[in-house]
Amino acid sequence: MLAILVLLAAPYDADVAARIVGSALAEGVAYRRLEELTDTIGPRLAGSTGDRLAVRWAFEKMKADGLAARLEPVRVPRWERGEERAWIVGGAGQRLAVTALGGSAPTPEGGLEAELVVVRSLEELTERVKGRIVLFDHSMPRGGGYGKFAKLRTEGPAAASKSGAAAALVRSLATSSMRSPHTGATDFTKAPPIPAAAVSVEDAQLLVRLAARGPVRVRLVLGCRTLPDAESHNVVGEVRGRDQPEEIVLFGAHLDSWDLGTGAIDDGAGVVMAMEVGRLLARSRPRRTVRIVLFANEENGLRGAQAYASAHAAALASHVAAIEADHGAGRALGVTAEGKFLEAWLPPLAALGVAQAISGGSRGGADLSPMKPARVPFVTVEQDGARYFDWHHSAADTFDKVDPVELAQATAAYAWVVFALAEAEETLPRVVAP
Amino acid sequence: MLAILVLLAAPYDADVAARIVGSALAEGVAYRRLEELTDTIGPRLAGSTGDRLAVRWAFEKMKADGLAARLEPVRVPRWERGEERAWIVGGAGQRLAVTALGGSAPTPEGGLEAELVVVRSLEELTERVKGRIVLFDHSMPRGGGYGKFAKLRTEGPAAASKSGAAAALVRSLATSSMRSPHTGATDFTKAPPIPAAAVSVEDAQLLVRLAARGPVRVRLVLGCRTLPDAESHNVVGEVRGRDQPEEIVLFGAHLDSWDLGTGAIDDGAGVVMAMEVGRLLARSRPRRTVRIVLFANEENGLRGAQAYASAHAAALASHVAAIEADHGAGRALGVTAEGKFLEAWLPPLAALGVAQAISGGSRGGADLSPMKPARVPFVTVEQDGARYFDWHHSAADTFDKVDPVELAQATAAYAWVVFALAEAEETLPRVVAP
Repeated sequence: MLAILVLLAAPYDADVAARIVGSALAEGVAYRRLEELTDTIGPRLAGSTGDRLAVRWAFEKMKADGLAARLEPVRVPRWERGEERAWIVGGAGQRLAVTALGGSAPTPEGGLEAELVVVRSLEELTERVKGRIVLFDHSMPRGGGYGKFAKLRTEGPAAASKSGAAAALVRSLATSSMRSPHTGATDFTKAPPIPAAAVSVEDAQLLVRLAARGPVRVRLVLGCRTLPDAESHNVVGEVRGRDQPEEIVLFGAHLDSWDLGTGAIDDGAGVVMAMEVGRLLARSRPRRTVRIVLFANEENGLRGAQAYASAHAAALASHVAAIEADHGAGRALGVTAEGKFLEAWLPPLAALGVAQAISGGSRGGADLSPMKPARVPFVTVEQDGARYFDWHHSAADTFDKVDPVELAQATAAYAWVVFALAEAEETLPRVVAP
Repeated sequence: MLAILVLLAAPYDADVAARIVGSALAEGVAYRRLEELTDTIGPRLAGSTGDRLAVRWAFEKMKADGLAARLEPVRVPRWERGEERAWIVGGAGQRLAVTALGGSAPTPEGGLEAELVVVRSLEELTERVKGRIVLFDHSMPRGGGYGKFAKLRTEGPAAASKSGAAAALVRSLATSSMRSPHTGATDFTKAPPIPAAAVSVEDAQLLVRLAARGPVRVRLVLGCRTLPDAESHNVVGEVRGRDQPEEIVLFGAHLDSWDLGTGAIDDGAGVVMAMEVGRLLARSRPRRTVRIVLFANEENGLRGAQAYASAHAAALASHVAAIEADHGAGRALGVTAEGKFLEAWLPPLAALGVAQAISGGSRGGADLSPMKPARVPFVTVEQDGARYFDWHHSAADTFDKVDPVELAQATAAYAWVVFALAEAEETLPRVVAP
């Protein structure tokens, strides 16, 4: 009798829940697609061949899944890596493991040589960096700090440029290292571009130790180049809403990736989870429209997100929720959203260990940020990211790092949360977290 | 009273033990020297500038430590790496993380392209590999298996050459990977050299998965070259025996390293431990001669070990023990030797957690192997090598991987065991383990 009462009290159909969650857990489609995307296409930097192939691949899959799929054009920056080498001048000429940051200027042919100066903050960029190679050192810990330390990578090289530095090196934002440099975008919109590269954690430590012994000269060779903007696309797939099709629940991930790895955790995992949510919900057709958006060019421009917000500006008021998967392939741990009503929808995730904390507003991720002015309510499925920055933006971001069981569990969590947002009578308040 | 009896029963002077073990643990000399060797000189491949600088560095240190130091000439092979790239032909041309194996032939300029064939043993090299690129796949587990799987690297490429293969790729012999290929020597004395490279674990797995989808073509570019033999040296430092100077206890490590990393664990750690044992025992002057030998060219030729055994052939009969440190910087766990008498010498290591298992004959390592025919008794201080193959032969073999406390503990164990072998009345039986 009690059981019946509980069932009556649930706002969802238990059979639908079992089908959606069970299919995500058992069918393994997301994992197989991640293998296909990363193995047969590989890296997908904006404007590259891989980017173009991935757009086509995702579009065809979405159509085959029964989604209303379309390509929305996006002009993307095109930056190519080229040769990259660095070494310590003198002695045996020890090599350094470096990789150019996205947006870096090239060095002159044959490289650039200067004395190193080590700093740990932008405030330390004084007169003494003039004509030097600045090393931005730091000690990002496991389990947090990317937001804080990433500033050294995104803003440090431009600040060094303003102070007259010849080039900038940034200790990789990495929680584990096998001498592996981690790339990422650096922002030269406010200063003339200079050569800027990440160095591996090991080499940053080496340079700091050597600088403590005496002057260190470094030679840096970067052959990167910026080409004219290219065309890419946001890939959009829709499950049209049963009753309120004009109301949209958006679930996004980004299809582009850095060029060093194959973008399995950043953000291939998000892509295949979003595609799988679309595929699964096409069978269930909730009340509102579910829109899957695979954004272009998150990594080095955010042009896809900007193009989406701009092209759909008028419709953002009817985006009732937006959710983004861009934190790897780790298992789902909980859900963050403003809106008590979601709590009653979460029992189907209890057995997956998804803690049901509706703890307040979600701040969303990079691709959702242009929707903030329109006060689109954001939701976050929190994923275990303990090892995310071991691989993030490095050559080691590859398929083997993904555990199929965790990926399936996270897919199930996203699928059910997106379904709930699209099916519930209530909608989230249009309050944006700070 | 009991304590006095125990003290009387000990074959060693407790004050001497406290001084040797305490100094090794507390003074930190080995760790500081490892930093100096790996940071200021770096990689030390036989015949390279780093090799030459390291020989000079070690020789000067030994002299300063009060050892009778000398350089013994060794003709060493000289192999240089050059450019190395590989990618999958077709699609977006996904890049593979490869590094040439020592002894590899270069590819023609512009590279070599062929279809891939995957094998897991030398026995699978049939007609079908003719004109192909052979990938030697395997699954070396953590905690053992190097001896078994290394055969694929050392013998595989020559066997592939005999079968008419165009080139060989070997899955890195690694227990952890961040897309990092691990080099190592391959033996082309029995077949015409072909291009041979290690691929990272991730890329080996990728190629295996792709080969399961259909034919895979790979392009490989290796610019390595073999130069004329060069001169290097075994660096020898001696503490002349107090009473029986003609009897020698040899403690060796190898000064050369692969070129990718800075040879901190392979075998900088062994080098600085051996040097430190020499420095500490020079203060204590045991009964027999302690000879520290820093061998040249262990990695790609073993020429130093061969030169030593050959130059000292007549004296090998009076080498009463030989011990080698070439398994990283991990803590000492136990001592393996044939000879019960050593047991009574081990209490000073009890507090270091060195299990006192004198469990039978030691088989010695590579640099001791040429002394086997002379039945020189080998002793092994077993070290914790659980993470050794994470970094071994890769760019990640760098100073930061070494824990100073573990290095000091292992140094103390070596120092005391070498002292015991040089001071004890008894000597080990001349029985060589199989």
